[in-house]
Amino acid sequence: MKTLSSVCETIIIAPDKVADLERFDAEKIKVFLNKALGIKEVSFSLSALRKLPNYLRKKDSFKLVLIQEEKNIRVSDVIPLDSPVQGLAIDLGSTTIAFYLYDFEKKKLLKEYSILNPQTVYGEDILTRLHLARKKEKLFEIRSVTLSAINKEIESLGSENIYYLSICGNTAMTHFFLGLPVNYLVFEPYPPVAKWYGDFSPKEVEIKINQEGRIFVFPSAGAYFGGDLISGLFYVELYKKERPCFFIDVGTNAEVVLGNKDFLLACAGAAGPALEGGIFKAGCRAEEGAIYKITILPSEKKIFYEVIGNKKPHCLCGSAIIDLMAQLFKADVLSPEGRLIKEKWPEQIIETEEGKEFLVYKDDKTTLTIKESEIKAFLRSKGAMYCILTLLCEKSGLTFKEIEKFYFAGSFGVNINVESAVMLGMLPEEALDKAASVGNSAGLGALKFLQNPNFEEIKNIVDSITYLELNIEPRFMELLTGALFIPHVNLELFPRIKQIKWSCNLKN
Amino acid sequence: MKTLSSVCETIIIAPDKVADLERFDAEKIKVFLNKALGIKEVSFSLSALRKLPNYLRKKDSFKLVLIQEEKNIRVSDVIPLDSPVQGLAIDLGSTTIAFYLYDFEKKKLLKEYSILNPQTVYGEDILTRLHLARKKEKLFEIRSVTLSAINKEIESLGSENIYYLSICGNTAMTHFFLGLPVNYLVFEPYPPVAKWYGDFSPKEVEIKINQEGRIFVFPSAGAYFGGDLISGLFYVELYKKERPCFFIDVGTNAEVVLGNKDFLLACAGAAGPALEGGIFKAGCRAEEGAIYKITILPSEKKIFYEVIGNKKPHCLCGSAIIDLMAQLFKADVLSPEGRLIKEKWPEQIIETEEGKEFLVYKDDKTTLTIKESEIKAFLRSKGAMYCILTLLCEKSGLTFKEIEKFYFAGSFGVNINVESAVMLGMLPEEALDKAASVGNSAGLGALKFLQNPNFEEIKNIVDSITYLELNIEPRFMELLTGALFIPHVNLELFPRIKQIKWSCNLKN
Repeated sequence: MKTLSSVCETIIIAPDKVADLERFDAEKIKVFLNKALGIKEVSFSLSALRKLPNYLRKKDSFKLVLIQEEKNIRVSDVIPLDSPVQGLAIDLGSTTIAFYLYDFEKKKLLKEYSILNPQTVYGEDILTRLHLARKKEKLFEIRSVTLSAINKEIESLGSENIYYLSICGNTAMTHFFLGLPVNYLVFEPYPPVAKWYGDFSPKEVEIKINQEGRIFVFPSAGAYFGGDLISGLFYVELYKKERPCFFIDVGTNAEVVLGNKDFLLACAGAAGPALEGGIFKAGCRAEEGAIYKITILPSEKKIFYEVIGNKKPHCLCGSAIIDLMAQLFKADVLSPEGRLIKEKWPEQIIETEEGKEFLVYKDDKTTLTIKESEIKAFLRSKGAMYCILTLLCEKSGLTFKEIEKFYFAGSFGVNINVESAVMLGMLPEEALDKAASVGNSAGLGALKFLQNPNFEEIKNIVDSITYLELNIEPRFMELLTGALFIPHVNLELFPRIKQIKWSCNLKN
Repeated sequence: MKTLSSVCETIIIAPDKVADLERFDAEKIKVFLNKALGIKEVSFSLSALRKLPNYLRKKDSFKLVLIQEEKNIRVSDVIPLDSPVQGLAIDLGSTTIAFYLYDFEKKKLLKEYSILNPQTVYGEDILTRLHLARKKEKLFEIRSVTLSAINKEIESLGSENIYYLSICGNTAMTHFFLGLPVNYLVFEPYPPVAKWYGDFSPKEVEIKINQEGRIFVFPSAGAYFGGDLISGLFYVELYKKERPCFFIDVGTNAEVVLGNKDFLLACAGAAGPALEGGIFKAGCRAEEGAIYKITILPSEKKIFYEVIGNKKPHCLCGSAIIDLMAQLFKADVLSPEGRLIKEKWPEQIIETEEGKEFLVYKDDKTTLTIKESEIKAFLRSKGAMYCILTLLCEKSGLTFKEIEKFYFAGSFGVNINVESAVMLGMLPEEALDKAASVGNSAGLGALKFLQNPNFEEIKNIVDSITYLELNIEPRFMELLTGALFIPHVNLELFPRIKQIKWSCNLKN
């Protein structure tokens, strides 16, 4: 079957050129499409059939809007030459919703922005929302709130011009978006409703793009491996690589895939909150007023900050926390066990009833500290990340040396300093030379689908993923014990850090 | 691709039997359908996905509603075991709309009835309605009136239970139903909008069957060869016959197809109105109070009537007119040229300023006559019918003797006496032994589609029909001259009638 190269294409029709091809109006178009594009079979929307006769009998040329459906090419609309034909890609995150407006004809990204997901009023974390949505009316409410927000954006971007929506989200977000029951998603064995959704009509999903358009919803490979990751893999094309690579997406969870053209092994764990500020009271997302970069010179007793929006800081985002801890560790202010060593910097280390705290920032309104207890919790998170990577390698019979690339999706690699993460033993040393940041791969994968609607390829990703359940994996707990230290109990795993620390210690 | 045997099927699911087949709910069903029915791929309606998880976790068995789409099998709904699953076939005639309610599970026709098409207020004949509907708002109005009438019936039959609508109508009716512009349909070369519609979602067409159902609209082979005829051919299966047969549908037009498995040659002409009472002032449709059968005994000067509904007669329907004229001709009261011969039955033949009239019936309120001028017009109609049959034979290199069967759709053969029609030279003598009445083949074809949704077969019918345009066929006018007589100028074509008349004449 001939397929379109982008999910939506236009073709210009000159009425006098097609007038004599056939007697039936739609047949004229069919014959022309076969001649011009080699398309043998198309279906027509009722709306296109209604408009076609008049357009065919005017002097002016006009455009057909063709849409690639899963098993069919459809003439969706008949429009004037100057009507724009656009597509929208959405990354429906649990906290933010990212929009990418794409012009199918200019093959150009027109706009890219995010809004807050209004679902957060039903709970900051997904689990709270899922449990709430076990009540049918709450599911409906959460769905409505989400659809309203998306439809509002679509309307302001221009409903009629948007003929395609490609959307990805984690499994919970996808269930909310489609109004699918989540009652069973929260209990063992966490069964999502479907593995493959395919394409929908906007009327069915109640989305206000052009009603003759189509909506593609990225499939889930499991409750903890959602459409956002499938979309990310589609973007990075891990499944086409010759040599094994890691795809690492750290959001609320850390989701990791190891693989190449021969295999895809996936795993997810709660390694995320550390980076989103979920552990630290002073922590926050990368928002205005957040310290995002810290440089300390312990010998000179100085701390330098960079703040988003150049404002007075009110919190620390993940990248700053990791930078801070890596540098405190390097300077021996933080011990391998995660203890603050007061004598190394007494001016900044406060002792309270709850234990020691490191004073990061203070002005007349704001005091930002990180507590020893928070550091301990962080060590579990960073250790989990390292162990997931180790476990995936072990299960595949690989070592970190054999990994070709570490692809970091999301904030990692952009905001977060990979060197700092390695210093803390969150990532293996091999990540230092092989790290590649791929940005918001979920959103970019959804955008890629608009440009390259390869339904089969996406189906194949879902089908070829093997998912490793951490909670039934005793080896994970074994590995974790050693990884709760900075960088690790076994320093042979981190030879470069061992050397840096040694040279540092000499200086001090 | 595996296809369903009827357009809609149900299959019973026992939750405990599918529980362990797969982790994803929809995948459980896919695996089961593959095992049970050999169906490799299905899609799911959003509504089915929303209902599935709860049904799968109850103890009771439930049903899936599967629908055969043109290129796909779809799980449309998930319902309790006792929910009926029905289909509706509609023959959308320009005067009446016939409904056939079918139970997919019991494989049983539940109900069959007709209503008047409310469109008739926009004009008795189709051409008036078409010209009116060239204005967009009138097209919309005519469509609305039709949809309302159909939706009202659907609602009273039970919207939710009806998962499929199969509908046929002539090309104008189909355009009205779908709201397609008719502006060009009324002018040379009479181009219909499309040759193939395929299936629609009820939302798209605004039809109130179950919104997860589907609607199939029979395609047109031309402006004068509509979906009702395609449906009729699908019912009669002319295209499967070994030897050539005629399919003759006489409504407003006479539409005739000659063919077998090797060819289909079609033609239409205005031979119809004669039979619908369009020519005779006393004529009418087969309604209550219409004389539908006449027996005359000229020797005894007696006329016997049978009236529909056993009421006082107020008009003559087509079958009565044909019977009457055939018997008047047989009795020499009507000459081969169509003149009434007063001396043969002076009591019944009245002379007026407009010419002679035959008095058929009279009481204190009603006088029913047929005028010589009307008879002349009728002779053109009956002659046209005979010439269409002759021409189709000539073009195919066949003689009437080689025809295996004459299939009569609609009133012909049921109400209308084929012998009378042969006597008048409307049909060839060969029709006498080979006539078969197929009833309302349009409606029955639409009903057959519910039981046997062969999209490809219907597409092939449309593609294999060759349409003969009478108005560009000089041979037609040549033939017509001889056919304006009763039965024909060339009596050798009607040897049996020649003999009957001769023996009658002997008796008189």
